[in-house]
Formats: sequence, C-alpha cells, structure tokens
Amino acid sequence: MSRAHQADDAGMTLSAIPGSVHIIGSGLIGTSLGLALARAGIDVTLADLDETHLAQAIELGAGRRRSPADDPPFLVVAATPPGRVGMVLAEAAATWENSTLTHVGSVQSATLTDAIARGVPRQRLVGGHPMAGREISGPSGARADLFDDRVWVICPTDDGDPDRVEQVVSMARSCGSTVVRMDPEAHDAAVAVISHTPQVLASALAGRLVDVDDTVVELSGQGLRDMTRIAASDSALWAEILELNAATVANVLGEVISDLDRIAGALRSAVREGDDGQTVDELLRRGVDGQARIPGKHGGRGGDYEIVSVMVKDEPGELASLFVAAGALGVNLEDVRIEHVLGRPSGLIDLSVRPQVAELLREGLMRQGFDVRG
Amino acid sequence: MSRAHQADDAGMTLSAIPGSVHIIGSGLIGTSLGLALARAGIDVTLADLDETHLAQAIELGAGRRRSPADDPPFLVVAATPPGRVGMVLAEAAATWENSTLTHVGSVQSATLTDAIARGVPRQRLVGGHPMAGREISGPSGARADLFDDRVWVICPTDDGDPDRVEQVVSMARSCGSTVVRMDPEAHDAAVAVISHTPQVLASALAGRLVDVDDTVVELSGQGLRDMTRIAASDSALWAEILELNAATVANVLGEVISDLDRIAGALRSAVREGDDGQTVDELLRRGVDGQARIPGKHGGRGGDYEIVSVMVKDEPGELASLFVAAGALGVNLEDVRIEHVLGRPSGLIDLSVRPQVAELLREGLMRQGFDVRG
Repeated sequence: MSRAHQADDAGMTLSAIPGSVHIIGSGLIGTSLGLALARAGIDVTLADLDETHLAQAIELGAGRRRSPADDPPFLVVAATPPGRVGMVLAEAAATWENSTLTHVGSVQSATLTDAIARGVPRQRLVGGHPMAGREISGPSGARADLFDDRVWVICPTDDGDPDRVEQVVSMARSCGSTVVRMDPEAHDAAVAVISHTPQVLASALAGRLVDVDDTVVELSGQGLRDMTRIAASDSALWAEILELNAATVANVLGEVISDLDRIAGALRSAVREGDDGQTVDELLRRGVDGQARIPGKHGGRGGDYEIVSVMVKDEPGELASLFVAAGALGVNLEDVRIEHVLGRPSGLIDLSVRPQVAELLREGLMRQGFDVRG
Repeated sequence: MSRAHQADDAGMTLSAIPGSVHIIGSGLIGTSLGLALARAGIDVTLADLDETHLAQAIELGAGRRRSPADDPPFLVVAATPPGRVGMVLAEAAATWENSTLTHVGSVQSATLTDAIARGVPRQRLVGGHPMAGREISGPSGARADLFDDRVWVICPTDDGDPDRVEQVVSMARSCGSTVVRMDPEAHDAAVAVISHTPQVLASALAGRLVDVDDTVVELSGQGLRDMTRIAASDSALWAEILELNAATVANVLGEVISDLDRIAGALRSAVREGDDGQTVDELLRRGVDGQARIPGKHGGRGGDYEIVSVMVKDEPGELASLFVAAGALGVNLEDVRIEHVLGRPSGLIDLSVRPQVAELLREGLMRQGFDVRG
C-alpha cells in the first residue's frame, strides 16, 4: 500500500541542494522537516524564538544551531505560524543576499504578498505547502516520515526563478513527498474548498453537540464521527489559516450557506419542489454527484476496489488469523475498515481488494470457516 | 471487538413473540428484518406492492406469503418508504383487530401522528428505528445480520400499551440489536442533530465539488473524504426523511447557518474578534469541545485507546505479519485505521490498543523488525 520514500530519489535530490537548509520554527512541521532532510543527508540549521523548542528539536536530531562561521544557507524555510511567515522571510532575505526563500504554510497568496510587501525579492521566493500534519503540535510530535507519500504543493511567484523553484521541489522530494505545482491563487481556491470550508463546517456541526444531552451523542453513528473528526484540530492555528485565506473561504462558505438557506426554507414550508429548482432533492442529488468525484471513494486513481465483509470475534489473534488467511491466498488487502457501533469498533471488518481477487478471497475465507458477510 | 448476537437472548425473546410477524415492504430493511427474525426461529410473513421484490425476499428465506388460513399476525412491521408508513399501518390496523403495529422508519413523531390520524389506535402502536443501513437498497442487499450490535430505538406513544412495547423490544433483541427507549420527539430531535443535519451538510459540501477542476479534488485528503462519505446515500429516501422531520431539522440547520453566517461575516471583514463574541476562534473552540463529546473518539465508553503507528510495505502478507505479531504478543487490536494519501491507502497503519499494552506492542513489534512510527 505504501509508496515509500525511494533512496534513489534522495540521492538525486542531494546534488540539487549543495548547501545547508535553514529552518525557522521548531514546531511539529519545522522539526519534522529537519528530521526528514537530515535523513536525506542534508545539512540542517535551526532557529526558534522558543529556546526550549529549539533545544528539543536539536536533541531529536532535526539539525544544529547556525554558527557565525557558517556559509549563508542555500535554502531558508519559514516554518512559523502562518501569520508570521512574511516577516520571518523578510528578515531572512535581508540577512542572506542569495538564499532561496520558502515556507510550509497552508495559505499561499496572502503569505507571498505579505513577504513581497516586506521587501522579499519575488525572484528568490517560492511558496510551498506540504499537505501533512498531526493532531498534536510542538517538536515532540515530530517525525522524519511526516512527509512520506504526502502531496507537497509548490507555488512559484509570478517572476519566480525556475532554478529556485527546482531547489524547493528537490527539497520536497528529498522529504519523500509527491510534488504538485499550482498558482498561489489556484492553491488557495483549492484548499478553501477541500480543507478550509470543511474545517468550518466540521466545527460548526461539532459545536451543536456542546449543549445536547448525553443520550443524543451516545446515539452517534459513524457518519457524525467522520463528519466532526477534524473539528478536534488546533483552533488557534486554524483561526490564523482562515484569516489569511479569509476572502476565498468566505466565498465558498457563502455558497454553502446559500444552499443550506434554500434547504432550510424548503423544509420550513415543507415544500420540496421550489420555484427556483434548488430543492432538497436537488441538493441531495448534487451531493451524490460531488461525492463521486473524490478520488479514493473506492480506492481512487489506482482503480475501484471491491469490499469483502467478515465478522470476527473479540479475541487476540482473530484479526491476525483473518489477515494471515488473506495473505496465504495471495490476496493483497488495499484497505481495511472496521465499523463502529455505540462508539466502539464492532467485529465487522470491511476488506477492500482488487475486484479480480474478491471472489477468490470470499471463497477462500469461507472454506477456512470465516464468517463472510458480503 | 464484536458484541455478537447471544443465543440466550434469542431464546428469551422467542417466548415473547408467540405468533407470526408480518412485514410490509421487502426492501433492504424489510427483507433483512425477515432474515433476522427467521434466524431467530420466528414465523415471518411478507408483503410488497412490488411482486419482484416480494418473490426475491421469499427466495432469500426472509419469510412466506400470508395465506387466508393464517391466524392474524402477532406483530405487523411497516418497512415501507417512511412517507407511506402511516397509511400502511392504518390498513393493517383495520385488517387485524389485535395485532401490535410498529415500523422501522428514521422519523417517529410525524409518522406516529400520521398513523393515529388515519385511525390506528395509539395503544396498539409502537414507534421503532433500527439504526442500521447500507449504501445499497432492495432485497438483494439484505442481510440477516444487518441489525446485529446496532441500536434499535423504541418510541412508545403517549398511551401505548407497555406489553406491546415489550413485544417490539423483544423483536428488536431477537434481531441482535441493543434497545434504547426514547420519546418520539426526543428521538427526532436527536437524529436531527446526529444524522439529518449532518446529511444536509455533507450533501451541501459535496455539491461544491461538482464544478471544481480535477486538480482540486485530486488534492482531497482524508478530512474531505470523511466529511462527504454519507453524501453518497440514497437521495430520494433522504428527501422523504428530511421532509418528515422538516421542522426539527430546519431548526438545527438554522443554528448551524447562523454560526456559519457569523464566521463568513467575520472572515469578510477580516475581524476575528467581533462584538457579539461569536468569532472564528470561538466557533472553532466550540467545535473542539463538541467533538470531544462523541463517544468513540478514542474508543468511547469502553475506555480510551492508545495508538501505535506502524509503516508496512505494499506486499501481500505484510498486514498479516503485523497482525500475527500483535496476536503472538497477546495484544488485542481494538481498532485499525489506514491513512489515505492521494485517494489511496498509504502504508501507515494506526493500531488502537488498550493503553496498558501499548508499550508491550511497540517494543515487541520493533524487536521483530517492524517499522514502528509512534
């Protein structure tokens, strides 16, 4: 299942970064970046206003402090909270005359504009957004593999230097990421739809649960759990992200609100066929169409998968025996999903496999006494 | 992990249903109900306006046709689309003078009121809602185990006969379900929050994906995937459900819209601290609090779980060897989650285990050469 970090990629990349990478900010992302670059054999220096965080990141092996004797960094990466990136890069641009400057924030346009307004030469500036994160923050949660198999969006500026763009691409690849290039505005419009607006909706929905009775939340099924999972994310960080992409998110959110208003109106009048054609049915059908576009619905771009459902007992080794049996049949499990009931995992396991081996798996498992349910 | 259907439960239940159960509607739920009751040794008769569906349900073993010689059914279950339940139960009440009448729809208050308005004696009427379903419909998707380990909400009417309520409880338990009793209005308010409003939000969000570029949906992460999964559900069925619970859903939806409006306004003016105190930060923090109330966040009522993350290779048997190793260490896996990247499962596996065995599992897996990541 994994598209693991390839050693030859790292080798190819090394030659493209013939100097040190200086990372400003030793939080989760900055420290993970240092660990990933160090893993690829790249010289990393670190800075952080928080001396405790910096010492911890160095202790973890994410890099070293810069010394006065060091050459200027080849690349400078701002890994601060997104609102501070422009300022940090402007300071770096003034300190080192030729270093390439990039960042790892979730918003591109406002960040790059701010940096340029503060005097960062746009030729030296490259936007970047590794689409990775964890629900914890700080250097202690850092992992060298945080970016493995992740998308790293690279956003060149209008007058960006192609060679410097390549340097940042190389850095992203040396961290194990897949690079996707986009305009800053296109990136921000995309994340407004696929990430920032969903975050707001998840938070608003989860917020409705604060005041309801225990009996209500105890009836929650997998649908509500899935829809509110991201509401648990760092609210201070998200407030900054939303503010930086405010206009774009407000537009997408406005479209969603408009749809919801039409539905609420239709429900209030209990009229399902409205004059404007935007009825409850229509919105629901539109949702079906939109959902079908998401890659990975049934395994995504790698092709559709078929699901084989098996009920297992609540005993150590039960899941193992199921996977052993699948392995012995030569069937690769593409995905595994366990249904939850009353907040607990149930014994019903959905195994996703390539369609051409589904029947083989079903028959093989049944022959071995497994309780195959579909 | 499973709380499997207990044979002694079924035995206890049999005595409480000393006659046949007549199921009107041979779709997914009706046919599954027939299969589950037949599994428990209960005599089931079936009816459906669609002769093809009825024949298929009978062929599957979900029950038999009623014959003129049959005694009146002990229980009648309306398993039709929710909008037709009142009418169907009124016909049944007029046909059989003493049968207990129930249904399996997602909305209680409007359904029971409609049935009573059509002449169903409230003493004979018991509301019910098995919280189970599949993304497919029709008898061909039916399963005898559809209700195993599921919650079946039972909603007595104001003047309901306690003995008849017990009959419906027994029927639900004989299908393997856990019974929760609620007032019809409390049920409808609960599902408006945990199911109906989330459905509308998922559809509205997924609808935003219809017109965006492929590059946008291809960046989708697990967050968007989770938030739109239920948007793929049957839109015609959901339109009926929403209409029956229209007023309650409109109220909850109105509260969500109000929160979203405040956020959109705050984003437009890029003012994060508004006068009314309902700022972006506040809504996000409220979402964190609400999300934390959902059981199952870390294993739910059964206690919190700790996560052990392991990276595995994309080869047959790799997952198996991981689970075999866990089983050999005597560790029961409570849950398994596989991260998705670019629409495909990645090799990073999150194993949820009881905290007291997490370290044992980590050390044991590392000793055997597994790539433990956290």
